[in-house]
Amino acid sequence: LIVALDAHGTDAGPEVIVEGARAAAADGIALRVFGEPGELAGLEQVEGVEVVPAAQRIANEEEPVRAVRAKPEASIVRAAADVAAGRSDALVSAGSTGAAMAASLFALKRMRGVHRPALAAQLPVPGGPVLFLDIGANAEVQPRHLVQFAYLGSAFSQAVLGVIQPRVALLSNGEEAGKGTQVVVEAHEQLAATRGIRFAGNVEGRDIPAGAADVVVTDGFTGNVALKLMEGTARMFAGEVREAARSNPLAIAGGLLLRPALGGLRRQLDPNVSGGAIMLGLRGVAVIGHGSSSGEGIANAVRLAARAVEERAVERTEALLEAGGVLRRRRRRPPVEVS
Amino acid sequence: LIVALDAHGTDAGPEVIVEGARAAAADGIALRVFGEPGELAGLEQVEGVEVVPAAQRIANEEEPVRAVRAKPEASIVRAAADVAAGRSDALVSAGSTGAAMAASLFALKRMRGVHRPALAAQLPVPGGPVLFLDIGANAEVQPRHLVQFAYLGSAFSQAVLGVIQPRVALLSNGEEAGKGTQVVVEAHEQLAATRGIRFAGNVEGRDIPAGAADVVVTDGFTGNVALKLMEGTARMFAGEVREAARSNPLAIAGGLLLRPALGGLRRQLDPNVSGGAIMLGLRGVAVIGHGSSSGEGIANAVRLAARAVEERAVERTEALLEAGGVLRRRRRRPPVEVS
Repeated sequence: LIVALDAHGTDAGPEVIVEGARAAAADGIALRVFGEPGELAGLEQVEGVEVVPAAQRIANEEEPVRAVRAKPEASIVRAAADVAAGRSDALVSAGSTGAAMAASLFALKRMRGVHRPALAAQLPVPGGPVLFLDIGANAEVQPRHLVQFAYLGSAFSQAVLGVIQPRVALLSNGEEAGKGTQVVVEAHEQLAATRGIRFAGNVEGRDIPAGAADVVVTDGFTGNVALKLMEGTARMFAGEVREAARSNPLAIAGGLLLRPALGGLRRQLDPNVSGGAIMLGLRGVAVIGHGSSSGEGIANAVRLAARAVEERAVERTEALLEAGGVLRRRRRRPPVEVS
Repeated sequence: LIVALDAHGTDAGPEVIVEGARAAAADGIALRVFGEPGELAGLEQVEGVEVVPAAQRIANEEEPVRAVRAKPEASIVRAAADVAAGRSDALVSAGSTGAAMAASLFALKRMRGVHRPALAAQLPVPGGPVLFLDIGANAEVQPRHLVQFAYLGSAFSQAVLGVIQPRVALLSNGEEAGKGTQVVVEAHEQLAATRGIRFAGNVEGRDIPAGAADVVVTDGFTGNVALKLMEGTARMFAGEVREAARSNPLAIAGGLLLRPALGGLRRQLDPNVSGGAIMLGLRGVAVIGHGSSSGEGIANAVRLAARAVEERAVERTEALLEAGGVLRRRRRRPPVEVS
């Protein structure tokens, strides 16, 4: 099993790539690392790691689709092509999310019968992560897209996160079936009639952190806003608690005593633990790590990608979509002309 | 100045209404309280408070528009009619949000030239509340609705919250002008060309708790999801900290020492402090309190409504919309027929 790792684009520079690749290689995962060999000092010597020179890079500011098309030598494009060519089994990048989405879509291609691939995040909530999609691949969706997202998320939750019968819910502004935009209301109707997944109805914003579902489905606009709002609220809250624990001597003592017990919460909220977001609905595995990833974050992104390959996530997703009868239908015969 | 207060619908029962009405009356705000006199023991005797018998009530489960039409004697409908008839100056309810929205819209009417009234919440963030709208009145919007929301929010922030030149931002999945759904992109273009408000461009979900804007505008679907997600995340976080502070003797000691310093955060996150959500774009003032309001929450909702009347929020909103040139135009002459 070989993972293609894009070495460019992490906030902390190539050191975290070196650290992450070492840690993943120590677990027996082989890697092809695409980047500037001069920046990846010592990685050549690690067993199971091959450094593939790719100096070109795509910055966060660049328009992703255009940049991916214009820079065939960029590390993310080369890494994605490596997977497409069968030299590697999965793609991992912690660079520009847009570029990683575009490169993986172009190289790995949509799964047959899938309308729109989606980007899924693991939200850190008590009792285990909630798989949340779409977090930004499709700002605008149609009901049939949301229906497929439910299958994509359910299959991944089952195959890779080990949830036996994932409860799949639709995000809305009310629990009743009739609540939401027209698109959400129609998606609810269609999901209520599907088979092969465990549709749990609508959930509201407050139900996500409460762990009311294992998979929560929404459009990429709402999903992106929600994900970042959750991150921002947790950060604000942590900052306020930290501030309070500095405000006077008694509080400082209290903060120090409480600190070890808060370690679990800190670990739970650490985005490095989950390893990153996953592109679902492609013919291959692509994991997009947080730009702020640590070495451990990179290693966990590689481990997540490897697990998806080992667990045959792509094949199991195809099978679930097929069994659910929600694949895009090809026209069998030309449409009848109405004269 | 007289506030019409709906006594039905609070989770904790009529006691919090009695407590809240007493506290507001002590501040010199006169009240007409619509409810069951038998449940409002002692309120009749409070100076400045008049109890108006209205036994009928609208439950959370009822379809709001239908219920408001079918129950002219319901306390919320009577209270709204009281404001419309000029006997009271503002409406306050902590009952069903949908019923309160419908009753206030029917009785108080849309402001001339306003497409769609919106419901605005004050989000508790460090450095002062962020006014956030729409949180649920309009699941689906058009660009011109979002443009008016920006003016409605700006006027309220200025008039009632005392923000001198409120920074008004549009919620999107990226800061760049081109990010978002088609509706958001068009609203951004229109807002960038407006006058009279301080348009600060797009903000992302993470910017809301960071206090990057004073007023944040979005559609009622995204706004409702976001508001509830923020509440849920704060609750989850507080629960985890509480849990940690119970986990072992040292942590218990730490939690006790830290407790006083955390009081500020607790007060900041307490929805009772802000008093509730505000319907904007009506010809009168309507405040919708949280169903879980305490007596203090009810009193603060009444104070917020009174402040909006005193500060002439409605008139100032009309003036700002007019100055911005964003009122709905009436057709001056019949449209020309194309033959």
